[in-house]
Amino acid sequence: MRAFNFSAGPAALPEEVLQQAADEMLDWQHSGMSVMEMSHRGREFMSIHEAALMDLRELLEVPASHRILFLQGGGIGENAIVPLNMLGARDSADFVITGSWTQKSYNEARKYGRAFIAASGKTEAGFTRVPSRSEWTLSDDPAYVHVCSNETIDGVEMFELPDLGNVPLVVDASSHILSRPMDLAKCGVMFAGAQKNIGIAGLTIVIVREDLLDRALAICPSAFEWKTVAEHNSMYNTPPTYAIYIAALVFKWLKRQGGLAAIEARNVAKARLLYDVIDRGGFYFNKVEPGARSRMNVPFFLADASRNEDFLAGAKERRLLQLKGHKSVGGMRASLYNAVPMEAVQALVDYMNEFEQRHA
Amino acid sequence: MRAFNFSAGPAALPEEVLQQAADEMLDWQHSGMSVMEMSHRGREFMSIHEAALMDLRELLEVPASHRILFLQGGGIGENAIVPLNMLGARDSADFVITGSWTQKSYNEARKYGRAFIAASGKTEAGFTRVPSRSEWTLSDDPAYVHVCSNETIDGVEMFELPDLGNVPLVVDASSHILSRPMDLAKCGVMFAGAQKNIGIAGLTIVIVREDLLDRALAICPSAFEWKTVAEHNSMYNTPPTYAIYIAALVFKWLKRQGGLAAIEARNVAKARLLYDVIDRGGFYFNKVEPGARSRMNVPFFLADASRNEDFLAGAKERRLLQLKGHKSVGGMRASLYNAVPMEAVQALVDYMNEFEQRHA
Repeated sequence: MRAFNFSAGPAALPEEVLQQAADEMLDWQHSGMSVMEMSHRGREFMSIHEAALMDLRELLEVPASHRILFLQGGGIGENAIVPLNMLGARDSADFVITGSWTQKSYNEARKYGRAFIAASGKTEAGFTRVPSRSEWTLSDDPAYVHVCSNETIDGVEMFELPDLGNVPLVVDASSHILSRPMDLAKCGVMFAGAQKNIGIAGLTIVIVREDLLDRALAICPSAFEWKTVAEHNSMYNTPPTYAIYIAALVFKWLKRQGGLAAIEARNVAKARLLYDVIDRGGFYFNKVEPGARSRMNVPFFLADASRNEDFLAGAKERRLLQLKGHKSVGGMRASLYNAVPMEAVQALVDYMNEFEQRHA
Repeated sequence: MRAFNFSAGPAALPEEVLQQAADEMLDWQHSGMSVMEMSHRGREFMSIHEAALMDLRELLEVPASHRILFLQGGGIGENAIVPLNMLGARDSADFVITGSWTQKSYNEARKYGRAFIAASGKTEAGFTRVPSRSEWTLSDDPAYVHVCSNETIDGVEMFELPDLGNVPLVVDASSHILSRPMDLAKCGVMFAGAQKNIGIAGLTIVIVREDLLDRALAICPSAFEWKTVAEHNSMYNTPPTYAIYIAALVFKWLKRQGGLAAIEARNVAKARLLYDVIDRGGFYFNKVEPGARSRMNVPFFLADASRNEDFLAGAKERRLLQLKGHKSVGGMRASLYNAVPMEAVQALVDYMNEFEQRHA
């Protein structure tokens, strides 16, 4: 029996996608092969790869000026790969710190050049807000400005991307990509690990404006040099073929759901249902400012933390899984990615109500 | 219907493994989740990860002095990741060039330090031999010596690893790992992409002697810094969890086959069957010296290259797939990895005999 899975990533996938992957495992469309067994240069896999690129471009409305690349290494890999590809002749970059992920990105970038903090959303209560553009102080001629548009651990989401004119904006969208439309024309670079809203761990999607492809440092490993990867249509090294196949199935599923506007409406409703229960009384709480609350990752706390273990044990009995908060912040976290159905959120809030009534 | 699949990678997988993956796709061992959906830090995935490490250590008889790491980026990624982790205070490394892969490794290393060619197996006919240890000229105090123990494109295999005393030997074993026992005590580092004998593309296995973990350059990306990866038990960034799961299933399958000595005997027999047909007359040929011929990747040529397309079309009719040679060398290539059964090799040689009789 399938459970309700609130993991922050790797995370829930649509059951239809899993079913199709299982059905096609031994013989993909009468090819006589599993997708796992296909040469990445063969006709069969190339058709999967091209469909993935086309559907992703359509779903995200990727401008013609931008290339879509499939890489490896995840968000933490990109923390180095971005400066290695973007610093070019400039030697500094600016960071808007909104949580643990941007903090890590900032630290890693300092290996390759100077890094400046343009703004921070840290308050006495932790990372609870997104500094507005007017609060950012950019350094003199930075190579780029880095933001994370959804902080998975802190549950802070940046819904509006600023227009920075000639300074490229780099957006780590790992944990909200495809949960809502996004204005990629404002992004010089957008990257995302696949293991949240796209599919399985081991695939990283980079969308980069073509004119930024000539900035790589000489020490950038070839396998991660975007220009080389782009020139070889993401086949300079063997790509993570099976992860691309699962992503392709997820993209088709998203189109059947009505695309990103439709999925966003569902995600808004799911998040509202949960935040309403959290906010209702003092039994549960969340520390993030209302306008910056993530729709994808909802950290919440029991006012009486001594009940945490009880809460998690009861959840598990009801097959509500992977609700424990990140070790750095504690409490609970419910991730409500695209593949988490409203039914799962309803089951969670029913349980939260019941638990509260029992203990209040 | 399943075909016979001779792909050089991604490549054939054992049907039992694919069947188990399909059966467990929606619900792994009553967890209510697919392995794809599991947090890498949860109890369920950790048990898969630990079993993979333990079985691999047992199969390859990895010495206690060596750590097993799961990374991303494949062999081409490692071409940069190795010098980034191994150059340390020394600034040079030596390379034994036996084919296209070592040539690439040598070129990439030059981004990070000086690289010297200790020996080359290139002859007028291409890469056809492995220079013996007595032919190697090492530079003065190299950080390491890099070899590729099986050249996938050229079909050249190095069966004996030299003892280099205090100089660490780095072995790219991507395309023969687990096809035979291997003396890891002689290796400072052994690495392999998974997409040949281990499982699916996107997982890279690095086995490194623990005392070599303190040599990384400051510019090494954290996600690929072996010491960091080792300290976090390959969970510093999200590992390619599903690829580790498939690898774990392949390791169990290998143990059921009797381990590496048993699989080696099968691989010797498979290779002999094919090389015997290639060598019999002048209709087919292979250019590699007999003692250096790869058991895993068998490039062969038709004396009359104008029949190549005919040969491939007839093979495809008989469901003998992915036999076209690498574009850089032409002709044919049959890869006979562990998961390619004797039955497949028999079907291939039957077809080769038939084709020869028809055209000779």
